[in-house]
Amino acid sequence: MSERTKPVNVSLEEVSFAVDCAAGRKAGTLLFKNARVLNVFTQSIDESNVLIAGRMIAGIGDYQQADKVIDLQGKYLAPGLIDGHIHIESSLVTPAAYAAGVLPRGVTGIVCDPHEIANVAGVAGIRWLLEQSEGLPFDVWVTVPSCVPSTPLETSGARLGLAEMNALLQQPRVVGVAEIMSFPAVIAGDSENLSKALLAESFRKSPEGHAPGVSGKNLQAYLASGIASDHESTTIGEGLEKLKAGVFLMVREGSVTRNLEALLPLIEPKHGDRIGFVTDDRLPHDLLREGGVDTLVRTAIQKGVDPVYAVRCASYNTAKHYRLPRRGAIAPGYIADLAVIDDLQSYHAVTIFKEGQKVAEHSQLTKRPDVRHVNSSPVLNTVKLPKLSTASFAIKATEKARCIKAIHYQVLTEEILVTPKLERGLIIADTEHDFLKLVCIERYGKTNNVGLGLVHGFALQAGALASTVGHDHHNLLAVGVNDDDLLLACQHLEKLGGGLVAVKDGQILADVPLPIGGLIADEPLESMRDKLDKLETAATELGNKLPAPFMTLSFLGLAVIPELRLTDMGLVDVMQSKLVSIEVLEGRK
Amino acid sequence: MSERTKPVNVSLEEVSFAVDCAAGRKAGTLLFKNARVLNVFTQSIDESNVLIAGRMIAGIGDYQQADKVIDLQGKYLAPGLIDGHIHIESSLVTPAAYAAGVLPRGVTGIVCDPHEIANVAGVAGIRWLLEQSEGLPFDVWVTVPSCVPSTPLETSGARLGLAEMNALLQQPRVVGVAEIMSFPAVIAGDSENLSKALLAESFRKSPEGHAPGVSGKNLQAYLASGIASDHESTTIGEGLEKLKAGVFLMVREGSVTRNLEALLPLIEPKHGDRIGFVTDDRLPHDLLREGGVDTLVRTAIQKGVDPVYAVRCASYNTAKHYRLPRRGAIAPGYIADLAVIDDLQSYHAVTIFKEGQKVAEHSQLTKRPDVRHVNSSPVLNTVKLPKLSTASFAIKATEKARCIKAIHYQVLTEEILVTPKLERGLIIADTEHDFLKLVCIERYGKTNNVGLGLVHGFALQAGALASTVGHDHHNLLAVGVNDDDLLLACQHLEKLGGGLVAVKDGQILADVPLPIGGLIADEPLESMRDKLDKLETAATELGNKLPAPFMTLSFLGLAVIPELRLTDMGLVDVMQSKLVSIEVLEGRK
Repeated sequence: MSERTKPVNVSLEEVSFAVDCAAGRKAGTLLFKNARVLNVFTQSIDESNVLIAGRMIAGIGDYQQADKVIDLQGKYLAPGLIDGHIHIESSLVTPAAYAAGVLPRGVTGIVCDPHEIANVAGVAGIRWLLEQSEGLPFDVWVTVPSCVPSTPLETSGARLGLAEMNALLQQPRVVGVAEIMSFPAVIAGDSENLSKALLAESFRKSPEGHAPGVSGKNLQAYLASGIASDHESTTIGEGLEKLKAGVFLMVREGSVTRNLEALLPLIEPKHGDRIGFVTDDRLPHDLLREGGVDTLVRTAIQKGVDPVYAVRCASYNTAKHYRLPRRGAIAPGYIADLAVIDDLQSYHAVTIFKEGQKVAEHSQLTKRPDVRHVNSSPVLNTVKLPKLSTASFAIKATEKARCIKAIHYQVLTEEILVTPKLERGLIIADTEHDFLKLVCIERYGKTNNVGLGLVHGFALQAGALASTVGHDHHNLLAVGVNDDDLLLACQHLEKLGGGLVAVKDGQILADVPLPIGGLIADEPLESMRDKLDKLETAATELGNKLPAPFMTLSFLGLAVIPELRLTDMGLVDVMQSKLVSIEVLEGRK
Repeated sequence: MSERTKPVNVSLEEVSFAVDCAAGRKAGTLLFKNARVLNVFTQSIDESNVLIAGRMIAGIGDYQQADKVIDLQGKYLAPGLIDGHIHIESSLVTPAAYAAGVLPRGVTGIVCDPHEIANVAGVAGIRWLLEQSEGLPFDVWVTVPSCVPSTPLETSGARLGLAEMNALLQQPRVVGVAEIMSFPAVIAGDSENLSKALLAESFRKSPEGHAPGVSGKNLQAYLASGIASDHESTTIGEGLEKLKAGVFLMVREGSVTRNLEALLPLIEPKHGDRIGFVTDDRLPHDLLREGGVDTLVRTAIQKGVDPVYAVRCASYNTAKHYRLPRRGAIAPGYIADLAVIDDLQSYHAVTIFKEGQKVAEHSQLTKRPDVRHVNSSPVLNTVKLPKLSTASFAIKATEKARCIKAIHYQVLTEEILVTPKLERGLIIADTEHDFLKLVCIERYGKTNNVGLGLVHGFALQAGALASTVGHDHHNLLAVGVNDDDLLLACQHLEKLGGGLVAVKDGQILADVPLPIGGLIADEPLESMRDKLDKLETAATELGNKLPAPFMTLSFLGLAVIPELRLTDMGLVDVMQSKLVSIEVLEGRK
């Protein structure tokens, strides 16, 4: 690995140069005059000049000379924003393409949990991410996925144990152990999960959390493990309980899960360093239209949060939480990641500097980040389906059946009990009542499992949708009204090496190839957005009523969030952490 | 070294037990009912029950059962206080004796800079401290001294280079690189000092600062190095400038240097995690009468600072700054270091628990911390003087002479130009104008240096005072009105293996033996206080007018704080970092 070619931190030569510039012995490389500096330490806006020395901020004060001088004429200078928790795979693009999308908005770094690519390709997937993000004008910090696989109730492409996690934690760009999602196991005192939290601490790194709806004694038990954060709060009550219990409260505004407005009253300066902003999962549409973590800053300001504090939640607070070296503030010795903002209310970034170099202006990159040519073979050709026929999708008739109810804009699902439509001793899709067939096919050539169930909410009237993005195991998930189209959709994705597809009456209406791990394509966000638009139009043509049908589909296999899910092993009752049959016996749930 | 016998952090077994207790599956070991919990995260006081599981806090909430239940009846429960920067050697006692002194006041940990013992005995001195503090019911965290010796203008007992510092930074209880005092060198871009700061960062540990009066471009240059803190601010202006520049502002209230009142307006919740409380140097008197870092909490509250915020500055903020594992708050997963407080205004601690065990009650230890029997030989017999006679103290006559002016309650000195009293071609002490003789004798058997100068401020009319505590090199410093008494004082200290002494007309009036490194005695604080009292009475008998003559004497050799100092090499002009002669030529300073 060439992971250390660019220092994560600064070199002695760089520091010496910055000290020389700050002391006035050498001219800096760049000088911002007449800036209004957002000071995240004193929560103030300071009028001053800011001197840059190479990648670093040399000093703030009465500096007058540098190789290049930019008079900001009273514009604001803000630290580059850092997203405290994202799964970059949800953007469907590589780190370079992600950076290209958010850099012009003033986002200069992310803390990635490469949970998806790790579930597909294990350590090789994480190393691919580290290599792909090496040398970008964009910080990609990594937390080591802690739940690969997420549960024993699914087949994943790889497993990450303590030994693999230990090896990855040696990397300087790895800053923690990612969200320990198996909260029931942690609360139950499972020693493997507790060991993962302790492992992070032994590196002076952070064990991150994920505890949706967990409260009372269960929350205390979860946190007694040492887990330090959570990004799953959806109400003020939940957020405040977690803050009080010592949680670093990550306020999330993803594409599907949007919690900023509900948690807004908690975002106040008195909570100081205890709140961070994160996006978790964002689709190309939202990244391009709304932005990345800058969305939270902008929205918070518009809803009345003090602008400097809003910026602090997406810069200093996150940097401090993870102890990101020299990031998150405008101060001597810090890396010169800066955004020139002309209007604080709309948080409109005019010009962006990454490590002292201009990288974007007027919403456009000044130079597209180089895509590194690294060996991608460990993450290619990952879709290996069992031999399928329509018979693979047969569900035996039953009078009452469990059905997953998808909820708009929520990752949560509900379990509903339905009377399924039957035909020749089998359950078939019921388009009238919107009980569609849902399948989850193991796609790593390991077990040939096919999980079968019903789902309510898509309202398809024809065809099928399928995806190799299927949290967290990323087996192939498909929803459809007939077995022929389901089969075609699955076979098409195998041919693509992964992706998303909409099928109708034996025809491919639209697809989005995702050849990297079945999760990611090596294309710009704009092209992914356009392809997704076509795909969603196709889904609408099939009758879909969900706002983001493919994201919703991708979460239907997520066996760690209540209530009912489908993995390749079958239906999972999440609260009970066990497989359940589709059939419900009379008088019992 | 047995440094790892007690885990710095928690073990898997301990965490499992705490999770079991928090979840309600097992009874805790201790339950506090009806507590008013100081919550440093939300800056609130929460009425609740707190369950302890062994060394850990299991949970806060509706817990009812434990092996032992204590009904606090509405008393406050505060996190144990942590002193963010102290030189334990200034207390003149061992870690066990220091702990015995401050534990009853609710102080449960300190971050030590063993700079003094390191200057005397190097790595062996630091290892002695780590061993002496092992297994105490008191946290002793260590920062690696960065300036041993402090300057090239003195002879120290040992040198610590990058290799030694690197080895010490491997220790889990070592949490940073201690105050980089050579600020002129840092500002000048000296690569060894910059490398020391970077070394801390490479361990994800903290490079600490010391920049008295440094401001403007010099301050920016100092901080461009990456240095993270400072505890030398004496005015609001200085403190605010440093806060704005990203400094973790340590507010200090030592025995001599007292900055809390001056910095009080900066101690406000809006500065959140950016302020910490420290004592730096405290004598036994002040530790016993006022306390350790609890003094700052108490005084801040009495001066109007929000009590929870005052506590936060001496707990969470310091723990977060150094990333002390699971310390500094009352929350699930944290170490159960707790103080029961009956009156928040006076911050009066009734009962103290360290790691879940009661250690003090009603200002008394319930059990005196065991003094470990470790091999102290590397720190014994450290005083090796050159062969001395009264001739060693002869200063050639000059018309105008530089004289150090000691300032009450300040580490700072001034340079004054005086007309010395002459006798037989030599300068002698002038008791009428209070220009006394000051000597600094190399005491490690290395160079036989004797530095000579004049000092104003002690006002002795007879005899001499001498000390083997002499910052930072800890050579022997003595002040006196005649050479015979100076000689006797020095010879007596050599006999004691180090210590403090007052001599009059050929008689020892009082002494304080400090056989450990010439800095420390293996006795309780109370006994040291009593001996010091006798010593100060003796100093008063000699005519001394300074409030803490031996502390002032010990700082007269500190060649890193302006303006004029005396080391074994001679007089040092600190701002110019060079040796100067006592003689001042006409028309020039």
